[in-house]
Amino acid sequence: MDLAVTTSIDDVFAPKLDRTTAESLREQIRRHLAGLIESRRLPPAAPLPPVRALAAMLGVNPMTVAKAYRELAVAGLVEGRGRSGTRVRTARPSLAPQSHRSLPRDRHERVSTSERLFELARAPNVIALTGNYPRPEDSGAPEFQACVAELVSGPLAANYFRYDPPAGRRELQEAVSGFVASSGIACPPGRVIITAGGQQAIDLVLRSVRQRGGGVVVERPAYFGILNAIRSAGLRAYEVPVGPAGMDLDILESVLKQEGPRLICVNPTFHNPTGTTIPIESRRRLLSLARQHGALILEDDHCPELRFDGEQVPALAALEGAADLVFYARGFGKAFVPGIRLGFLLVPVSHLRPLLATKASADLQSTALMQGALARFFARGHHQTATNRLLTAYAPRREQLLRALADCLPQAIRVHPPAGGLSLWLTMDRAAPASELYYCAAGHGVAFAAGEAFYARPPAELALRISFGLTPPEQIAEAAERLGNSLRDLLERCIASPLPL
Amino acid sequence: MDLAVTTSIDDVFAPKLDRTTAESLREQIRRHLAGLIESRRLPPAAPLPPVRALAAMLGVNPMTVAKAYRELAVAGLVEGRGRSGTRVRTARPSLAPQSHRSLPRDRHERVSTSERLFELARAPNVIALTGNYPRPEDSGAPEFQACVAELVSGPLAANYFRYDPPAGRRELQEAVSGFVASSGIACPPGRVIITAGGQQAIDLVLRSVRQRGGGVVVERPAYFGILNAIRSAGLRAYEVPVGPAGMDLDILESVLKQEGPRLICVNPTFHNPTGTTIPIESRRRLLSLARQHGALILEDDHCPELRFDGEQVPALAALEGAADLVFYARGFGKAFVPGIRLGFLLVPVSHLRPLLATKASADLQSTALMQGALARFFARGHHQTATNRLLTAYAPRREQLLRALADCLPQAIRVHPPAGGLSLWLTMDRAAPASELYYCAAGHGVAFAAGEAFYARPPAELALRISFGLTPPEQIAEAAERLGNSLRDLLERCIASPLPL
Repeated sequence: MDLAVTTSIDDVFAPKLDRTTAESLREQIRRHLAGLIESRRLPPAAPLPPVRALAAMLGVNPMTVAKAYRELAVAGLVEGRGRSGTRVRTARPSLAPQSHRSLPRDRHERVSTSERLFELARAPNVIALTGNYPRPEDSGAPEFQACVAELVSGPLAANYFRYDPPAGRRELQEAVSGFVASSGIACPPGRVIITAGGQQAIDLVLRSVRQRGGGVVVERPAYFGILNAIRSAGLRAYEVPVGPAGMDLDILESVLKQEGPRLICVNPTFHNPTGTTIPIESRRRLLSLARQHGALILEDDHCPELRFDGEQVPALAALEGAADLVFYARGFGKAFVPGIRLGFLLVPVSHLRPLLATKASADLQSTALMQGALARFFARGHHQTATNRLLTAYAPRREQLLRALADCLPQAIRVHPPAGGLSLWLTMDRAAPASELYYCAAGHGVAFAAGEAFYARPPAELALRISFGLTPPEQIAEAAERLGNSLRDLLERCIASPLPL
Repeated sequence: MDLAVTTSIDDVFAPKLDRTTAESLREQIRRHLAGLIESRRLPPAAPLPPVRALAAMLGVNPMTVAKAYRELAVAGLVEGRGRSGTRVRTARPSLAPQSHRSLPRDRHERVSTSERLFELARAPNVIALTGNYPRPEDSGAPEFQACVAELVSGPLAANYFRYDPPAGRRELQEAVSGFVASSGIACPPGRVIITAGGQQAIDLVLRSVRQRGGGVVVERPAYFGILNAIRSAGLRAYEVPVGPAGMDLDILESVLKQEGPRLICVNPTFHNPTGTTIPIESRRRLLSLARQHGALILEDDHCPELRFDGEQVPALAALEGAADLVFYARGFGKAFVPGIRLGFLLVPVSHLRPLLATKASADLQSTALMQGALARFFARGHHQTATNRLLTAYAPRREQLLRALADCLPQAIRVHPPAGGLSLWLTMDRAAPASELYYCAAGHGVAFAAGEAFYARPPAELALRISFGLTPPEQIAEAAERLGNSLRDLLERCIASPLPL
């Protein structure tokens, strides 16, 4: 008898129900089981416990469990009923045994719905809810431009037309060291590598991991740039579901124990795309799990300054004991100067040499002139000006968008408003073909990021990310209305009727 | 009996002697055999034919063959004599069977002599012969700086502070398409990817090859940036020796037949580091060999404009039938604007999608502002100005350096003056520990690139690359004198006495 098939929910772990939150018990059970299935802690064909047994184990009404099971069936995650009981679905090709480890290599060979939606965003008369970064006039671009102008307005700036060491210009390494110190991260300039944006910082770490072998943990869903870098490096990926408080650490622990990945990729603050933020206690536990199981952490922190609600949570890199465990990656594009293509990576000292060799192999070094201008930008304190300008511009736009969505979206769509960042995550507990999503969006002249772009394996549920970075205030109401109409169309035209359970 | 050990020179191929060139017959025999050994067409322990037998086969005096064998022994490539005859040396760990395929992964873990020499180049009172790129004032940097100043001097240049498609700005793709057309390469803008310098162009191709599997051919010696990228991608490398007319195509053919590599990396014009240029007939043969054996070509063409002697030879990418076989990689740093970190890759159309995905994974795209300024630079024809300025500045410096070296260098050192480029390759048919090279250089206050940096496996012979890009005219005589004294020291202090043969 196949061992995997005998795995049942109580062999792994039962959901820990929280009766104090707004999330219903049914939703907690559904989400927890979905996470176990999507991370393959519950493999295909594994039986779920009988409804009455799980209800008794959890001390809830059997109807609550039955409803959760029904929703899982609608989402395509489980199947069957009656004598043989409910089992994890085996039929979905996306859950085939081989495919959960390495991401499909040939994904870039076909034009995906998400690419078609990004193309749609550039079409005339389309409102694009795809720009997860600020408009130049709402960012630090004016100050940065002035810094460039100062460097190039005099005689030949010979100091900027030469080859530098791969780590970057000393003046910018020092500026970064001072900048991160202000958010509690102690990192000397010698551990800073200046990169071509946050994307290169991520890519360098994954390339370096590949050379040493082993798999990586990634959030499900995750920023498509990190999925692309994992795919490009040919690494095995273990997807761990993201809940309302970020990555599910129980599932992470189980993956660490069973699979021994070398690296955990995590975006703990204003997670892209779901917007969740990992609370401080969970951050400590994450660090401790990594240490205990010999894994490193890649912390992608794209815009912690863009907080609209609540208190700042320290970065993982700022916690005690992080210096030799955490690679900290940031770009300057999302919170300071869009399109600047500069960022940085803070590197544990024992990994500095291989990372510098990888940077040299990738592009030798980043442009000296842009580095010089950015160092000046920080020295003048323009990053503070930029943050203040962004918060002033985007806090009211975010409120306006949330209100408009509350009016326009169909009831079946759930909005997940984050405490910060320029995107919102929308979900629906039902499956819909992503291609239909494209036609509905095109029909109403609105574009957004299709959820599928953020999953290594296609998701069972429908999701989308809408970003308001490039949306002018006067377009927000119209954008919400078009989006609402698109999704209403989608619901009416092509949602499969719920499976009988 | 081990098949490899029975391989003899006539099983592979005998040297084709050319009695019309300046190169002596002895040197031709030595070079050809060294190439067979270093590319492992003649594996360790393979017997060389008896001196008299080879002399008879080639129609030369036996003393000529004996001298060539003796030089190979001094270089550490062959060993033994008497009854058992001369055999390819087995003792060198660098020729261990495993190591010829994949480059050592841990090379970046230790500080190499070449790195120490590059560090020495930054020390006070040291004359650095390491800059293989022009001084800003001798390049197009003043014009480029003016282009940047124009873009940033007015109101907010919002068009440059945004995210672009990974292929680059259309205006620069068009400028590149026009630029390469002027040297006979027909490539529409849609096949141009703007990269972070020539290094990234090389790296993207190698990463893309890795995803499809298979090994790559690389020249021996080769530019260390390409060796780093091969190492970083974890690819198998087959080294093919470079002779006075570039890559040895007979050996290449044998490697293509026996190993089936997917890609041939070649720097056909002013080869870095040896300075050789592949003649037009050999270029046609190279293209035809690649097509015949199903291999692609990566043509690294760093500075074809910097020609001081002779006629321009068309790039491989300009030859008939190249469009679907040749990736053409160039940076703008060496011939136009040092340190700009922009370059381009011309991509066969069937490889465009995977290459764009790799570029997006590497750094999303290159900086819009720098791309915009460079497009303006080309539109104004500043690249012509830059080329004229470079040739005017460097032609006399090169002459001055060659004359000074003729006066200062010990007889045992051979200078290989190329028809173009800012470097010269120096060789000596004897082995010397690279660490001693460092001490001799440091003792006399001169730095250069150690030959070992350009070899995947350590070379048997001593070589070095000296570059005069950053050397002011008034320092050239002093530089040559210091170099001569360093090498005289090296010869006196630590050359092992010739092996008895």
